[in-house]
Amino acid sequence: MAWKNYLDREQDRFVSELTEFVSIPSVSAKPENAADVQRAAEWVASRLTEAGGENVEVLQTAGHPVVCGNWLHAGPDRPTVLVYGHFDVQPAEPFELWSSPPFEPEVRDGRLFGRGATDDKGSMLIPILATEAMLKSAGRLPINLRFFFEGQEEIGSPDMPDFVAANAHRLSADMIFSADGAQWAPDQPQIIEGLRGIASVEIVVRGADSDQHSGLHGGGIANPAMALAQILASMKSPDGHITVEGFYDDVVPLTEDDRAAIAEVPFDAEAYLAETGAPAEHGEPGYTTRERLWARPTLEINGLTSGWQGAGTKTVLPAEARAKITCRLVADQSPERIVEALRAHVERHAPDGVTVEFEAGAARGNPFLVPRGHNASVVAAQVLEEIYGRAPLRTRVGGSIPVMTMLLEHVGVHATMFAFQHDDENLHGPDEFVRLDAFRRGQEAYCRLFESL
Amino acid sequence: MAWKNYLDREQDRFVSELTEFVSIPSVSAKPENAADVQRAAEWVASRLTEAGGENVEVLQTAGHPVVCGNWLHAGPDRPTVLVYGHFDVQPAEPFELWSSPPFEPEVRDGRLFGRGATDDKGSMLIPILATEAMLKSAGRLPINLRFFFEGQEEIGSPDMPDFVAANAHRLSADMIFSADGAQWAPDQPQIIEGLRGIASVEIVVRGADSDQHSGLHGGGIANPAMALAQILASMKSPDGHITVEGFYDDVVPLTEDDRAAIAEVPFDAEAYLAETGAPAEHGEPGYTTRERLWARPTLEINGLTSGWQGAGTKTVLPAEARAKITCRLVADQSPERIVEALRAHVERHAPDGVTVEFEAGAARGNPFLVPRGHNASVVAAQVLEEIYGRAPLRTRVGGSIPVMTMLLEHVGVHATMFAFQHDDENLHGPDEFVRLDAFRRGQEAYCRLFESL
Repeated sequence: MAWKNYLDREQDRFVSELTEFVSIPSVSAKPENAADVQRAAEWVASRLTEAGGENVEVLQTAGHPVVCGNWLHAGPDRPTVLVYGHFDVQPAEPFELWSSPPFEPEVRDGRLFGRGATDDKGSMLIPILATEAMLKSAGRLPINLRFFFEGQEEIGSPDMPDFVAANAHRLSADMIFSADGAQWAPDQPQIIEGLRGIASVEIVVRGADSDQHSGLHGGGIANPAMALAQILASMKSPDGHITVEGFYDDVVPLTEDDRAAIAEVPFDAEAYLAETGAPAEHGEPGYTTRERLWARPTLEINGLTSGWQGAGTKTVLPAEARAKITCRLVADQSPERIVEALRAHVERHAPDGVTVEFEAGAARGNPFLVPRGHNASVVAAQVLEEIYGRAPLRTRVGGSIPVMTMLLEHVGVHATMFAFQHDDENLHGPDEFVRLDAFRRGQEAYCRLFESL
Repeated sequence: MAWKNYLDREQDRFVSELTEFVSIPSVSAKPENAADVQRAAEWVASRLTEAGGENVEVLQTAGHPVVCGNWLHAGPDRPTVLVYGHFDVQPAEPFELWSSPPFEPEVRDGRLFGRGATDDKGSMLIPILATEAMLKSAGRLPINLRFFFEGQEEIGSPDMPDFVAANAHRLSADMIFSADGAQWAPDQPQIIEGLRGIASVEIVVRGADSDQHSGLHGGGIANPAMALAQILASMKSPDGHITVEGFYDDVVPLTEDDRAAIAEVPFDAEAYLAETGAPAEHGEPGYTTRERLWARPTLEINGLTSGWQGAGTKTVLPAEARAKITCRLVADQSPERIVEALRAHVERHAPDGVTVEFEAGAARGNPFLVPRGHNASVVAAQVLEEIYGRAPLRTRVGGSIPVMTMLLEHVGVHATMFAFQHDDENLHGPDEFVRLDAFRRGQEAYCRLFESL
C-alpha cells in the first residue's frame, strides 16, 4: 500500500501543519476573531489544493465562510463521497486554566494540546491528508470525492441552512462521511447512530439604568440578578425535570428496543464521574444516565453574568443580569418550537419590577438518527473492525452537528460519522488535545474507507 | 470671617488637590490595589499635616490602614470633636460605562467626575480644608479636634472592630461627626437618624472539575449555574418577601410613630424612578417604598458569575457558579446571626449533584439609630438651617457605615452625619461625581459647625 508508506514518511510534516492550523484562533463565537475564521478558511483551501483537491473555493455566507473542493476523476461507475468537517473552534477562555497557551500548540506525551486540536481541526485534516497520500502515491482516488468544510459549527451553523439549500449541487453525493464525531475509546471503535439537536437562547433582565448602591436602593427597586434566578429556577425542578410548559410535547418516547440498544453499551458510572470530576450523576428522573445523555432533551445554562464579579464585595444592585442557555433536542423536537416554548415560559414567569428580554440564539439544529443497516455505516463499521480488531459499538452522542440534518434534507443522504476524536480530549474545555496516534490511525482509516467503497 | 476669605482664595487649589486625591485608585475590594489604598493613606496624612493637623500617623491594621491626627490646643473647657471619613473607594468597573476615565478626574459643568469624587474623598477632604482655613487665618480652632480616616469602609470595615477597640484613646471625643453621609438635595438639608447594618456572603456551587461540553454531558451531571439559580430563588419570593428561615426573627416591627416620621418626608415615586431608571418600585409587600429603603432589611445579589460570558454561544456546562450577596439590616438584627441564617438556609436548599460552599464575607455592620434631640444633631441642624435657609428633614439612609456603631460602643458617642454628598451623584456606579458648589459649601458648614460648638 503505497499510501501507507507516504503517511509514514510525511507524518512529522503533518503534525507541524496541524500545529500551524491550530495556531489560528478561529473562534466563531467572538466577533473580534472573524478575520481569523476567514484566515483559517484560506489555510484550509490552500492545504486542500496542495493535497490535490480541485475547484477549491472559499465561499462567503452571511456569517463565517465555507470551503468546498473536489476530485471527480474516478469515473461515473464509482460512488461519489462527500466529506464534512469544520475549521472554527470554541472560545478558549478561561485562558488561565490551560497548561500551555491554547493557540500555541504544544506536543506532550504524544498528545498535541491546543484549542481545536481534536474538535475539529485535527479531525478534518485527516481526510485531506488521506486524499493527499493516495493522490501523491497512486496518482488517483478509487472514488469521486467532494469536500465541505464550514466555519460556524461551534455557533450552531446559523447560515448553513441557506448555504446547503443553495449549494446542493456542490454537495451532491452517494454517501456522506463526517470528520466531526468520535471513537468510543483508543481501543474501541463505534458507529454513532444519533445526535441531539440544539437550540440556543439568551435572557436579559434589566432594572435600573446603571448599577445602583445596594444600600441606598435595595428594597426600593427589583434586583435583576434575583429576578433572573427566579426565572431560571422556574425552568427546571431540582430533580432535573424540565418544567418549561410544552418542552417535552414533541419528544418521541423511548421504546423498549431503544432502551435495550442503549443498555447494550457498557456504562461505568465511576469512570464517568472520574472523567468529569462531578460529585454525582444527576438528571431527569426515570432514565439511566446514558439514556439522559443520548436520548433525552436538556436545558443547560451555559453562562451567567451580573454585577460585580471581581474579588471581595462591591455593594451594587446590578442594572442587568444575563443568562445564556442551550437545549439539546431529541426526535421529534424542533429548535423553532422549543425556542417558542421557552419564550412563552419566560414571558409568563417574568417577575414584576424588571423588564425581561428574550433573544433567540443563532444555534439551531435538528436531532439526527441514522437507520441501522444504512449502507455507509456498514462499510464504515467494516473498516473500523479491520483497524481496531474489534466490532464497533452502536452508540449515540449527546452533542449536535446541525449540518447533518440539513444534508439529509437537501442532499438526501444520511451522513455517517467517521472521525477519530475521543470524549476525554477536553473538547470545549481547557487543555483540549488530540492523540497523535489516533490522528495517524484516522488517516489510514480514511484511505481504507475510500478503497472499500 | 477670615476663614471665609481663605476658602474663597484657595478654592481652585482645593479642587486640584481633590483631583490628585481621586486619581489614586484606592479600591479596597481589589487585592491588586492594596498599595494604592496605602498611597491614599499617605496622601491623606500628608495633606492633614499640611492643614495644621498634629500627631498625624498612618496606622496599620490586618487589612487596609487608618490615618489619625489631631489638634488639641483649644483648652480643656472646649469640647473635643472627632471627625470620621474614608479614603478607600468602590471598584470602578465597568470602565466602558464611564464618560471619562474613573481615575482621571474631569470637571464638567461644575461637577468633578471620578470614582470616589463624592464617596468619600471629596467629603472627607472638606473637614481637613475647613481646619486649614481656620488655622491659617486665625491660628487656632475654637474646639479640640481629632481625625479618624479609614481605608476599608467600602468592604464593610472588617478590621475596624479591633482597631476601634484598641485605639479608643485616639478617638475619644464629646461629639462625633461623620464626613460620610449626604444632604437631601442641593437646596434641602437633612439630619440622618438611621443607617442600616450590613452582612455579606458568597455562595460557590461546583460540579465537574472543569467546564464540560454541554452536549456530551448535559443530562448526565448537574449544572452548577442552575443549582445556584435554584438556591437563590429559594431565598426570596417574587413579591420581594425574603424567605430565608429566621431572617426577620430579630426585626423590631415599625411602630405607628416610626411610620408617621418616615411618611413626613416627601417621597416622589416618579422622581425616584427617573433617578434610578427602574421600570417600577418593587419590594416586600406591606410597606411603602420609603419604609423598605430606610427601615426594612434586604437581601440583594451583588454579582453572578458562571461559564461563558462573552458574545454568542459557548456550549459549556460550567464547572462552577458564584453569587455575591449583601444584606442590609435593621434593629435588632445582627450580621452574625443573619450570616448563620443564610448558611443554614443554603445548606438546607443545596440541590443534589453539586457541592455548595458558603463563605461569610468580610462586611459586618450593625444597624445604627440616633436618638431625636441628640446634642450634636441639634447643633448640626442649626448650622444646616443657617446655610440652606431651610430646616433639615429628619431622614434615614438605606446604606451602612459600620464604624458608627463601633464608635458608639467604644467611644460612647452617637455620631452625627455631617456630609455633603447627594444620592444622585452615582455613588458606587459609573460617572460618580461631586458638585463643586456643595464641596465649597461643606467647607463653610464645617467652619460654622466648629464655631457653634
